[in-house]
Amino acid sequence: MLNARVRWGETDAGGIVFYPNYFHWFDWGTHELFHSMGLPIQSLLEQGILTPILGAACDFSAPLYYDDDITITSSFAELKTKTFRIEHVVRRGDVVTGRGHEWRGWVVRENGNLRAVTIPEEVRRLMQADG
Amino acid sequence: MLNARVRWGETDAGGIVFYPNYFHWFDWGTHELFHSMGLPIQSLLEQGILTPILGAACDFSAPLYYDDDITITSSFAELKTKTFRIEHVVRRGDVVTGRGHEWRGWVVRENGNLRAVTIPEEVRRLMQADG
Amino acid sequence: MLNARVRWGETDAGGIVFYPNYFHWFDWGTHELFHSMGLPIQSLLEQGILTPILGAACDFSAPLYYDDDITITSSFAELKTKTFRIEHVVRRGDVVTGRGHEWRGWVVRENGNLRAVTIPEEVRRLMQADG
Amino acid sequence: MLNARVRWGETDAGGIVFYPNYFHWFDWGTHELFHSMGLPIQSLLEQGILTPILGAACDFSAPLYYDDDITITSSFAELKTKTFRIEHVVRRGDVVTGRGHEWRGWVVRENGNLRAVTIPEEVRRLMQADG
Repeated sequence: MLNARVRWGETDAGGIVFYPNYFHWFDWGTHELFHSMGLPIQSLLEQGILTPILGAACDFSAPLYYDDDITITSSFAELKTKTFRIEHVVRRGDVVTGRGHEWRGWVVRENGNLRAVTIPEEVRRLMQADG
Repeated sequence: MLNARVRWGETDAGGIVFYPNYFHWFDWGTHELFHSMGLPIQSLLEQGILTPILGAACDFSAPLYYDDDITITSSFAELKTKTFRIEHVVRRGDVVTGRGHEWRGWVVRENGNLRAVTIPEEVRRLMQADG
Repeated sequence: MLNARVRWGETDAGGIVFYPNYFHWFDWGTHELFHSMGLPIQSLLEQGILTPILGAACDFSAPLYYDDDITITSSFAELKTKTFRIEHVVRRGDVVTGRGHEWRGWVVRENGNLRAVTIPEEVRRLMQADG
Repeated sequence: MLNARVRWGETDAGGIVFYPNYFHWFDWGTHELFHSMGLPIQSLLEQGILTPILGAACDFSAPLYYDDDITITSSFAELKTKTFRIEHVVRRGDVVTGRGHEWRGWVVRENGNLRAVTIPEEVRRLMQADG
Protein backbone atom coordinates (compact mmCIF):
# COMPACT_ATOMS: atom_id res chain seq x y z
CA MET A 1 0.00 0.00 0.00
CA LEU A 2 1.31 3.42 -0.94
CA ASN A 3 0.76 6.54 1.08
CA ALA A 4 0.75 9.90 -0.66
CA ARG A 5 -0.51 13.42 -0.24
CA VAL A 6 -2.28 14.98 -3.22
CA ARG A 7 0.16 17.45 -4.74
CA TRP A 8 -0.69 20.92 -5.94
CA GLY A 9 0.37 19.98 -9.44
CA GLU A 10 -2.07 17.07 -9.50
CA THR A 11 -5.09 19.35 -9.22
CA ASP A 12 -6.84 21.28 -11.95
CA ALA A 13 -8.76 24.54 -12.25
CA GLY A 14 -11.86 22.73 -10.99
CA GLY A 15 -10.07 22.52 -7.65
CA ILE A 16 -9.89 18.72 -7.66
CA VAL A 17 -7.49 16.04 -8.86
CA PHE A 18 -7.14 15.88 -12.64
CA TYR A 19 -8.32 12.34 -13.32
CA PRO A 20 -5.42 11.04 -15.46
CA ASN A 21 -3.34 11.25 -12.30
CA TYR A 22 -5.19 8.16 -11.07
CA PHE A 23 -3.52 6.23 -13.87
CA HIS A 24 -0.13 7.71 -12.93
CA TRP A 25 -0.81 6.34 -9.44
CA PHE A 26 -1.91 2.97 -10.84
CA ASP A 27 1.32 2.61 -12.79
CA TRP A 28 3.29 3.64 -9.73
CA GLY A 29 1.31 1.13 -7.64
CA THR A 30 2.13 -1.67 -10.08
CA HIS A 31 5.84 -0.89 -10.01
CA GLU A 32 5.91 -0.77 -6.22
CA LEU A 33 3.86 -3.99 -6.04
CA PHE A 34 6.53 -5.80 -8.04
CA HIS A 35 9.16 -4.24 -5.75
CA SER A 36 7.36 -5.55 -2.69
CA MET A 37 7.26 -9.05 -4.24
CA GLY A 38 11.03 -9.03 -4.57
CA LEU A 39 10.68 -8.84 -8.34
CA PRO A 40 11.58 -5.25 -9.23
CA ILE A 41 10.61 -4.35 -12.79
CA GLN A 42 14.14 -3.04 -13.31
CA SER A 43 15.46 -6.58 -12.86
CA LEU A 44 12.78 -7.95 -15.19
CA LEU A 45 13.83 -5.43 -17.84
CA GLU A 46 17.43 -6.58 -17.49
CA GLN A 47 16.23 -10.11 -18.26
CA GLY A 48 14.37 -8.87 -21.33
CA ILE A 49 10.95 -9.18 -19.72
CA LEU A 50 8.32 -6.50 -20.21
CA THR A 51 4.88 -6.08 -18.69
CA PRO A 52 3.16 -3.88 -21.29
CA ILE A 53 -0.21 -2.34 -20.61
CA LEU A 54 -3.13 -3.89 -22.50
CA GLY A 55 -6.00 -2.04 -20.91
CA ALA A 56 -6.80 0.25 -18.01
CA ALA A 57 -9.97 1.55 -16.44
CA CYS A 58 -11.11 3.51 -13.42
CA ASP A 59 -14.43 4.44 -11.82
CA PHE A 60 -14.46 7.65 -9.84
CA SER A 61 -16.73 7.90 -6.83
CA ALA A 62 -15.59 11.01 -4.93
CA PRO A 63 -13.43 14.01 -5.70
CA LEU A 64 -9.93 14.36 -4.25
CA TYR A 65 -8.57 17.73 -3.18
CA TYR A 66 -5.15 19.29 -2.76
CA ASP A 67 -3.35 18.06 0.34
CA ASP A 68 -5.66 15.11 0.90
CA ASP A 69 -3.86 12.15 2.44
CA ILE A 70 -4.51 9.13 0.31
CA THR A 71 -3.61 5.47 0.05
CA ILE A 72 -3.20 3.46 -3.13
CA THR A 73 -3.73 -0.28 -2.73
CA SER A 74 -2.62 -2.49 -5.61
CA SER A 75 -3.12 -6.25 -5.78
CA PHE A 76 -3.20 -9.07 -8.30
CA ALA A 77 -6.84 -9.75 -9.12
CA GLU A 78 -6.72 -12.18 -12.02
CA LEU A 79 -4.07 -14.39 -13.60
CA LYS A 80 -4.34 -15.82 -17.07
CA THR A 81 -1.72 -17.76 -18.99
CA LYS A 82 0.07 -14.77 -20.49
CA THR A 83 -1.69 -11.82 -18.92
CA PHE A 84 -2.63 -10.54 -15.47
CA ARG A 85 -4.92 -7.97 -13.97
CA ILE A 86 -3.98 -5.66 -11.12
CA GLU A 87 -6.71 -3.95 -9.13
CA HIS A 88 -6.04 -0.50 -7.71
CA VAL A 89 -8.07 1.27 -5.06
CA VAL A 90 -7.50 4.88 -4.05
CA ARG A 91 -8.85 5.94 -0.68
CA ARG A 92 -8.96 9.06 1.49
CA GLY A 93 -9.31 7.53 4.93
CA ASP A 94 -12.10 5.00 4.55
CA VAL A 95 -13.63 6.66 1.51
CA VAL A 96 -12.90 5.01 -1.84
CA THR A 97 -12.43 7.84 -4.33
CA GLY A 98 -11.46 5.70 -7.31
CA ARG A 99 -11.25 2.01 -8.11
CA GLY A 100 -9.82 0.55 -11.26
CA HIS A 101 -7.47 -1.92 -12.85
CA GLU A 102 -4.78 -2.54 -15.37
CA TRP A 103 -4.45 -5.53 -17.69
CA ARG A 104 -0.83 -6.27 -18.51
CA GLY A 105 0.97 -8.89 -20.53
CA TRP A 106 4.07 -10.97 -19.85
CA VAL A 107 6.33 -10.41 -22.80
CA VAL A 108 9.90 -11.31 -23.69
CA ARG A 109 12.13 -9.44 -26.05
CA GLU A 110 14.11 -11.85 -28.19
CA ASN A 111 16.30 -10.67 -31.07
CA GLY A 112 14.44 -7.39 -31.09
CA ASN A 113 11.02 -9.05 -31.30
CA LEU A 114 8.38 -9.00 -28.61
CA ARG A 115 6.53 -12.21 -27.81
CA ALA A 116 3.87 -12.87 -25.18
CA VAL A 117 4.86 -15.93 -23.20
CA THR A 118 3.46 -18.00 -20.35
CA ILE A 119 3.97 -16.39 -16.97
CA PRO A 120 6.58 -18.59 -15.22
CA GLU A 121 5.31 -20.76 -12.37
CA GLU A 122 7.49 -19.08 -9.72
CA VAL A 123 6.21 -15.63 -10.75
CA ARG A 124 2.65 -16.93 -10.72
CA ARG A 125 3.15 -18.18 -7.16
CA LEU A 126 4.41 -14.76 -6.06
CA MET A 127 1.46 -13.08 -7.76
CA GLN A 128 -1.02 -15.42 -6.08
CA ALA A 129 0.56 -14.83 -2.68
CA ASP A 130 0.16 -11.11 -3.20
CA GLY A 131 -3.36 -11.14 -4.61
CA MET B 1 -10.38 15.41 -34.67
CA LEU B 2 -7.14 16.52 -33.10
CA ASN B 3 -3.75 16.20 -34.71
CA ALA B 4 -0.67 15.87 -32.54
CA ARG B 5 2.86 14.61 -32.62
CA VAL B 6 3.98 12.42 -29.75
CA ARG B 7 6.20 14.57 -27.56
CA TRP B 8 9.49 13.50 -26.02
CA GLY B 9 8.05 14.09 -22.58
CA GLU B 10 5.16 11.72 -23.27
CA THR B 11 7.47 8.72 -23.66
CA ASP B 12 9.01 6.58 -20.95
CA ALA B 13 12.21 4.59 -20.49
CA GLY B 14 10.58 1.73 -22.39
CA GLY B 15 10.83 3.96 -25.47
CA ILE B 16 7.09 4.20 -25.94
CA VAL B 17 4.25 6.46 -24.81
CA PHE B 18 3.55 6.27 -21.07
CA TYR B 19 -0.04 5.07 -21.08
CA PRO B 20 -1.63 7.68 -18.74
CA ASN B 21 -0.97 10.18 -21.52
CA TYR B 22 -3.86 8.58 -23.42
CA PHE B 23 -6.18 9.89 -20.71
CA HIS B 24 -4.58 13.32 -20.93
CA TRP B 25 -5.44 13.18 -24.65
CA PHE B 26 -8.98 11.95 -23.92
CA ASP B 27 -9.63 14.88 -21.60
CA TRP B 28 -8.16 17.25 -24.18
CA GLY B 29 -10.35 15.62 -26.84
CA THR B 30 -13.46 16.15 -24.75
CA HIS B 31 -12.70 19.81 -24.17
CA GLU B 32 -12.03 20.40 -27.87
CA LEU B 33 -15.18 18.47 -28.79
CA PHE B 34 -17.27 20.87 -26.69
CA HIS B 35 -15.41 23.75 -28.35
CA SER B 36 -16.26 22.44 -31.79
CA MET B 37 -19.95 22.17 -30.78
CA GLY B 38 -20.00 25.86 -29.93
CA LEU B 39 -20.32 24.98 -26.26
CA PRO B 40 -16.90 25.69 -24.75
CA ILE B 41 -16.50 24.23 -21.27
CA GLN B 42 -15.28 27.63 -20.09
CA SER B 43 -18.73 29.06 -20.83
CA LEU B 44 -20.40 26.10 -19.11
CA LEU B 45 -18.30 26.72 -16.02
CA GLU B 46 -19.38 30.35 -16.01
CA GLN B 47 -22.98 29.11 -15.93
CA GLY B 48 -22.18 26.83 -13.00
CA ILE B 49 -22.26 23.66 -15.11
CA LEU B 50 -19.66 20.95 -14.61
CA THR B 51 -19.03 17.74 -16.54
CA PRO B 52 -17.22 15.63 -13.93
CA ILE B 53 -15.59 12.36 -14.85
CA LEU B 54 -17.40 9.24 -13.62
CA GLY B 55 -15.33 6.59 -15.32
CA ALA B 56 -12.66 6.17 -17.96
CA ALA B 57 -11.15 3.21 -19.77
CA CYS B 58 -8.79 2.46 -22.61
CA ASP B 59 -7.64 -0.62 -24.52
CA PHE B 60 -4.18 -0.41 -26.00
CA SER B 61 -3.51 -2.24 -29.25
CA ALA B 62 -0.17 -0.93 -30.52
CA PRO B 63 2.70 1.07 -29.03
CA LEU B 64 3.24 4.70 -29.91
CA TYR B 65 6.73 6.15 -30.31
CA TYR B 66 8.32 9.57 -30.00
CA ASP B 67 7.54 11.81 -32.95
CA ASP B 68 4.71 9.65 -34.25
CA ASP B 69 1.99 11.70 -35.92
CA ILE B 70 -1.30 10.81 -34.33
CA THR B 71 -4.96 11.74 -34.47
CA ILE B 72 -7.39 11.75 -31.58
CA THR B 73 -11.03 11.35 -32.58
CA SER B 74 -13.63 12.08 -29.92
CA SER B 75 -17.37 11.64 -30.33
CA PHE B 76 -20.53 11.27 -28.28
CA ALA B 77 -21.31 7.56 -28.08
CA GLU B 78 -24.11 7.32 -25.56
CA LEU B 79 -26.52 9.77 -23.95
CA LYS B 80 -28.44 9.03 -20.79
CA THR B 81 -30.63 11.39 -18.82
CA LYS B 82 -27.88 12.90 -16.67
CA THR B 83 -24.73 11.31 -18.04
CA PHE B 84 -22.99 10.86 -21.37
CA ARG B 85 -20.22 8.74 -22.80
CA ILE B 86 -17.53 10.03 -25.14
CA GLU B 87 -15.57 7.58 -27.23
CA HIS B 88 -11.95 8.37 -28.04
CA VAL B 89 -9.83 6.70 -30.69
CA VAL B 90 -6.11 7.33 -31.09
CA ARG B 91 -4.57 6.44 -34.43
CA ARG B 92 -1.19 6.59 -36.13
CA GLY B 93 -2.19 6.74 -39.77
CA ASP B 94 -4.78 3.97 -40.16
CA VAL B 95 -3.57 2.01 -37.15
CA VAL B 96 -5.67 2.28 -34.01
CA THR B 97 -3.21 2.35 -31.09
CA GLY B 98 -5.76 2.94 -28.33
CA ARG B 99 -9.52 3.11 -28.03
CA GLY B 100 -11.40 4.11 -24.95
CA HIS B 101 -14.07 6.26 -23.42
CA GLU B 102 -15.06 8.59 -20.65
CA TRP B 103 -18.34 8.65 -18.76
CA ARG B 104 -19.20 12.12 -17.55
CA GLY B 105 -22.08 13.65 -15.67
CA TRP B 106 -24.04 16.86 -16.21
CA VAL B 107 -23.91 18.68 -12.91
CA VAL B 108 -24.92 22.10 -11.65
CA ARG B 109 -23.38 23.95 -8.76
CA GLU B 110 -26.08 25.69 -6.74
CA ASN B 111 -25.34 27.41 -3.45
CA GLY B 112 -22.09 25.51 -3.23
CA ASN B 113 -23.75 22.12 -3.72
CA LEU B 114 -23.32 19.88 -6.73
CA ARG B 115 -26.38 18.21 -8.22
CA ALA B 116 -26.67 15.96 -11.27
CA VAL B 117 -29.42 17.28 -13.52
CA THR B 118 -31.07 16.32 -16.79
CA ILE B 119 -28.98 17.28 -19.80
CA PRO B 120 -30.92 20.14 -21.46
CA GLU B 121 -32.65 19.33 -24.72
CA GLU B 122 -30.62 21.82 -26.78
CA VAL B 123 -27.38 20.35 -25.47
CA ARG B 124 -28.65 16.85 -26.19
CA ARG B 125 -29.37 17.85 -29.78
CA LEU B 126 -25.85 19.22 -30.21
CA MET B 127 -24.41 16.02 -28.73
CA GLN B 128 -26.49 13.85 -31.05
CA ALA B 129 -25.44 15.88 -34.07
CA ASP B 130 -21.81 15.36 -33.08
CA GLY B 131 -22.06 11.68 -32.17
CA MET C 1 13.79 16.63 3.08
CA LEU C 2 11.68 14.45 0.83
CA ASN C 3 12.49 10.90 -0.12
CA ALA C 4 11.27 9.53 -3.41
CA ARG C 5 11.98 6.84 -5.94
CA VAL C 6 12.11 7.88 -9.58
CA ARG C 7 8.89 6.64 -11.17
CA TRP C 8 8.62 4.94 -14.53
CA GLY C 9 6.38 7.76 -15.74
CA GLU C 10 9.01 10.36 -14.90
CA THR C 11 11.47 8.94 -17.42
CA ASP C 12 11.62 9.55 -21.15
CA ALA C 13 12.70 7.61 -24.23
CA GLY C 14 16.29 8.66 -23.51
CA GLY C 15 16.08 6.37 -20.50
CA ILE C 16 16.52 9.18 -17.97
CA VAL C 17 14.31 11.57 -16.03
CA PHE C 18 12.48 14.08 -18.22
CA TYR C 19 13.83 17.34 -16.87
CA PRO C 20 10.55 19.23 -16.22
CA ASN C 21 9.94 16.69 -13.46
CA TYR C 22 12.60 18.51 -11.43
CA PHE C 23 10.26 21.49 -11.30
CA HIS C 24 7.37 19.24 -10.27
CA TRP C 25 9.62 18.10 -7.40
CA PHE C 26 10.58 21.70 -6.58
CA ASP C 27 6.95 22.73 -6.28
CA TRP C 28 6.27 19.65 -4.16
CA GLY C 29 9.30 20.50 -2.02
CA THR C 30 8.01 24.02 -1.44
CA HIS C 31 4.59 22.82 -0.38
CA GLU C 32 6.06 20.25 2.01
CA LEU C 33 8.49 22.87 3.38
CA PHE C 34 5.56 25.08 4.34
CA HIS C 35 3.89 22.03 5.87
CA SER C 36 6.96 21.30 7.97
CA MET C 37 6.99 24.94 9.18
CA GLY C 38 3.47 24.54 10.50
CA LEU C 39 2.22 26.86 7.81
CA PRO C 40 0.46 24.62 5.27
CA ILE C 41 -0.28 26.41 2.02
CA GLN C 42 -3.88 25.19 2.28
CA SER C 43 -4.31 27.33 5.40
CA LEU C 44 -2.63 30.30 3.68
CA LEU C 45 -5.06 29.97 0.77
CA GLU C 46 -7.97 30.02 3.22
CA GLN C 47 -6.64 33.34 4.51
CA GLY C 48 -6.42 34.70 0.95
CA ILE C 49 -2.64 34.45 0.79
CA LEU C 50 -0.92 33.18 -2.33
CA THR C 51 2.74 32.42 -3.02
CA PRO C 52 2.87 32.75 -6.82
CA ILE C 53 5.93 31.70 -8.77
CA LEU C 54 8.02 34.56 -10.18
CA GLY C 55 10.95 32.60 -11.52
CA ALA C 56 12.49 29.16 -11.45
CA ALA C 57 15.78 27.68 -12.58
CA CYS C 58 17.74 24.45 -12.36
CA ASP C 59 21.21 23.25 -13.28
CA PHE C 60 21.51 19.58 -14.09
CA SER C 61 24.74 17.81 -13.24
CA ALA C 62 24.01 14.09 -13.55
CA PRO C 63 21.25 11.98 -15.11
CA LEU C 64 18.66 10.24 -12.97
CA TYR C 65 17.34 6.81 -13.89
CA TYR C 66 14.17 4.83 -13.25
CA ASP C 67 14.02 3.44 -9.71
CA ASP C 68 16.81 5.66 -8.39
CA ASP C 69 16.30 6.57 -4.75
CA ILE C 70 16.50 10.33 -4.43
CA THR C 71 16.16 13.08 -1.87
CA ILE C 72 14.82 16.57 -2.46
CA THR C 73 16.07 19.18 0.00
CA SER C 74 14.25 22.51 0.03
CA SER C 75 15.23 25.51 2.13
CA PHE C 76 14.72 29.25 2.30
CA ALA C 77 17.77 30.87 0.73
CA GLU C 78 16.85 34.54 0.47
CA LEU C 79 14.18 36.78 1.98
CA LYS C 80 13.24 40.14 0.53
CA THR C 81 10.42 42.39 1.63
CA LYS C 82 7.72 40.86 -0.54
CA THR C 83 9.47 37.91 -2.16
CA PHE C 84 11.50 34.89 -1.13
CA ARG C 85 13.77 32.37 -2.76
CA ILE C 86 13.73 28.66 -2.03
CA GLU C 87 16.71 26.53 -2.97
CA HIS C 88 16.14 22.94 -4.02
CA VAL C 89 18.77 20.23 -4.27
CA VAL C 90 18.09 16.79 -5.73
CA ARG C 91 20.50 14.02 -4.80
CA ARG C 92 20.97 10.32 -5.45
CA GLY C 93 22.95 9.29 -2.40
CA ASP C 94 25.71 11.88 -2.15
CA VAL C 95 25.57 12.86 -5.80
CA VAL C 96 23.82 16.13 -6.60
CA THR C 97 21.92 15.55 -9.83
CA GLY C 98 20.17 18.92 -9.98
CA ARG C 99 20.25 22.15 -8.02
CA GLY C 100 17.91 25.05 -8.53
CA HIS C 101 15.55 27.53 -6.99
CA GLU C 102 12.20 29.22 -7.12
CA TRP C 103 11.43 32.89 -6.54
CA ARG C 104 7.98 33.38 -5.12
CA GLY C 105 5.96 36.37 -3.99
CA TRP C 106 3.77 36.97 -0.94
CA VAL C 107 0.45 38.11 -2.29
CA VAL C 108 -2.97 38.78 -0.83
CA ARG C 109 -6.25 38.54 -2.64
CA GLU C 110 -8.51 41.42 -1.65
CA ASN C 111 -11.84 42.04 -3.36
CA GLY C 112 -10.68 39.91 -6.26
CA ASN C 113 -7.45 41.84 -6.73
CA LEU C 114 -3.97 40.47 -6.10
CA ARG C 115 -1.47 42.65 -4.28
CA ALA C 116 2.09 41.87 -3.24
CA VAL C 117 2.51 42.71 0.43
CA THR C 118 5.27 42.65 3.03
CA ILE C 119 5.91 39.16 4.39
CA PRO C 120 4.65 39.26 8.00
CA GLU C 121 7.30 39.24 10.71
CA GLU C 122 6.16 35.94 12.24
CA VAL C 123 6.33 34.23 8.83
CA ARG C 124 9.76 35.76 8.24
CA ARG C 125 10.97 34.31 11.52
CA LEU C 126 9.74 30.84 10.54
CA MET C 127 11.43 31.16 7.16
CA GLN C 128 14.70 32.22 8.74
CA ALA C 129 14.58 29.33 11.20
CA ASP C 130 14.11 26.95 8.30
CA GLY C 131 16.69 28.50 5.95
CA MET D 1 6.44 29.19 -33.46
CA LEU D 2 4.00 26.82 -31.84
CA ASN D 3 0.34 27.56 -31.28
CA ALA D 4 -1.47 25.91 -28.42
CA ARG D 5 -4.49 26.32 -26.21
CA VAL D 6 -3.97 25.92 -22.48
CA ARG D 7 -5.41 22.54 -21.54
CA TRP D 8 -7.56 21.81 -18.53
CA GLY D 9 -4.94 19.39 -17.25
CA GLU D 10 -2.26 22.08 -17.36
CA THR D 11 -4.01 24.18 -14.73
CA ASP D 12 -3.95 23.78 -10.97
CA ALA D 13 -6.31 24.46 -8.08
CA GLY D 14 -5.18 28.10 -8.13
CA GLY D 15 -7.00 28.36 -11.44
CA ILE D 16 -3.86 29.10 -13.45
CA VAL D 17 -1.21 27.14 -15.33
CA PHE D 18 0.96 24.97 -13.08
CA TYR D 19 4.38 26.44 -13.79
CA PRO D 20 6.35 23.25 -14.60
CA ASN D 21 4.22 23.08 -17.75
CA TYR D 22 6.30 25.95 -19.11
CA PHE D 23 9.27 23.60 -19.15
CA HIS D 24 7.19 20.93 -20.88
CA TRP D 25 6.46 23.57 -23.52
CA PHE D 26 10.13 24.58 -23.70
CA ASP D 27 11.20 21.00 -24.36
CA TRP D 28 8.45 20.68 -26.97
CA GLY D 29 9.59 23.96 -28.52
CA THR D 30 13.16 22.70 -28.79
CA HIS D 31 12.11 19.47 -30.46
CA GLU D 32 9.91 21.31 -32.95
CA LEU D 33 12.69 23.86 -33.59
CA PHE D 34 15.02 21.06 -34.64
CA HIS D 35 12.22 19.67 -36.80
CA SER D 36 11.78 23.02 -38.53
CA MET D 37 15.55 23.15 -39.20
CA GLY D 38 15.35 19.85 -41.07
CA LEU D 39 17.29 18.18 -38.27
CA PRO D 40 14.72 16.14 -36.35
CA ILE D 41 16.02 14.92 -33.00
CA GLN D 42 14.87 11.41 -33.94
CA SER D 43 17.43 11.39 -36.75
CA LEU D 44 20.12 12.77 -34.42
CA LEU D 45 19.38 9.95 -31.96
CA GLU D 46 19.77 7.42 -34.76
CA GLN D 47 23.25 8.86 -35.37
CA GLY D 48 24.09 8.54 -31.67
CA ILE D 49 23.80 12.28 -31.02
CA LEU D 50 22.10 13.56 -27.89
CA THR D 51 21.26 17.10 -26.80
CA PRO D 52 21.05 16.71 -23.01
CA ILE D 53 19.73 19.48 -20.82
CA LEU D 54 22.36 21.30 -18.75
CA GLY D 55 20.23 24.06 -17.29
CA ALA D 56 16.82 25.65 -17.63
CA ALA D 57 15.20 28.78 -16.28
CA CYS D 58 12.05 30.82 -16.66
CA ASP D 59 10.72 34.14 -15.43
CA PHE D 60 6.97 34.39 -15.11
CA SER D 61 5.31 37.74 -15.74
CA ALA D 62 1.60 37.04 -16.06
CA PRO D 63 -0.70 34.13 -15.20
CA LEU D 64 -2.12 31.90 -17.89
CA TYR D 65 -5.64 30.51 -17.66
CA TYR D 66 -7.49 27.51 -19.02
CA ASP D 67 -8.38 27.87 -22.69
CA ASP D 68 -6.00 30.79 -23.29
CA ASP D 69 -4.58 30.78 -26.81
CA ILE D 70 -0.82 30.94 -26.55
CA THR D 71 2.25 30.92 -28.73
CA ILE D 72 5.63 29.44 -27.86
CA THR D 73 8.55 30.96 -29.74
CA SER D 74 11.86 29.10 -29.56
CA SER D 75 15.11 30.32 -31.07
CA PHE D 76 18.84 29.78 -30.80
CA ALA D 77 20.23 32.54 -28.61
CA GLU D 78 23.82 31.54 -27.96
CA LEU D 79 26.25 29.07 -29.50
CA LYS D 80 29.38 27.86 -27.74
CA THR D 81 31.78 25.18 -28.91
CA LYS D 82 29.94 22.23 -27.38
CA THR D 83 26.81 23.80 -25.95
CA PHE D 84 23.96 26.00 -27.08
CA ARG D 85 21.22 28.07 -25.51
CA ILE D 86 17.65 28.19 -26.76
CA GLU D 87 15.41 31.05 -25.72
CA HIS D 88 11.70 30.40 -25.27
CA VAL D 89 8.99 33.03 -25.03
CA VAL D 90 5.38 32.21 -24.17
CA ARG D 91 2.77 34.79 -25.12
CA ARG D 92 -0.99 35.22 -24.94
CA GLY D 93 -1.60 37.64 -27.79
CA ASP D 94 1.00 40.36 -27.29
CA VAL D 95 1.47 39.70 -23.60
CA VAL D 96 4.59 37.79 -22.62
CA THR D 97 3.58 35.46 -19.79
CA GLY D 98 6.89 33.66 -19.42
CA ARG D 99 10.37 33.93 -20.87
CA GLY D 100 13.16 31.50 -20.30
CA HIS D 101 15.85 29.34 -21.80
CA GLU D 102 17.49 25.96 -21.91
CA TRP D 103 21.21 25.23 -22.07
CA ARG D 104 21.91 21.98 -23.89
CA GLY D 105 25.02 20.09 -24.85
CA TRP D 106 26.04 18.35 -28.06
CA VAL D 107 26.99 14.85 -27.06
CA VAL D 108 27.86 11.65 -28.87
CA ARG D 109 27.36 8.16 -27.58
CA GLU D 110 30.35 5.99 -28.49
CA ASN D 111 30.71 2.43 -27.16
CA GLY D 112 28.18 3.24 -24.45
CA ASN D 113 30.06 6.32 -23.28
CA LEU D 114 28.79 9.89 -23.62
CA ARG D 115 31.20 12.56 -24.75
CA ALA D 116 30.59 16.27 -25.38
CA VAL D 117 31.92 17.18 -28.81
CA THR D 118 32.21 20.26 -30.97
CA ILE D 119 28.95 21.17 -32.68
CA PRO D 120 29.55 20.41 -36.39
CA GLU D 121 29.92 23.41 -38.69
CA GLU D 122 26.85 22.55 -40.79
CA VAL D 123 24.69 22.29 -37.66
CA ARG D 124 26.10 25.56 -36.38
CA ARG D 125 25.13 27.24 -39.63
CA LEU D 126 21.57 25.94 -39.36
CA MET D 127 21.40 27.14 -35.75
CA GLN D 128 22.66 30.59 -36.69
CA ALA D 129 20.15 30.87 -39.52
CA ASP D 130 17.38 30.03 -37.09
CA GLY D 131 18.55 32.23 -34.20
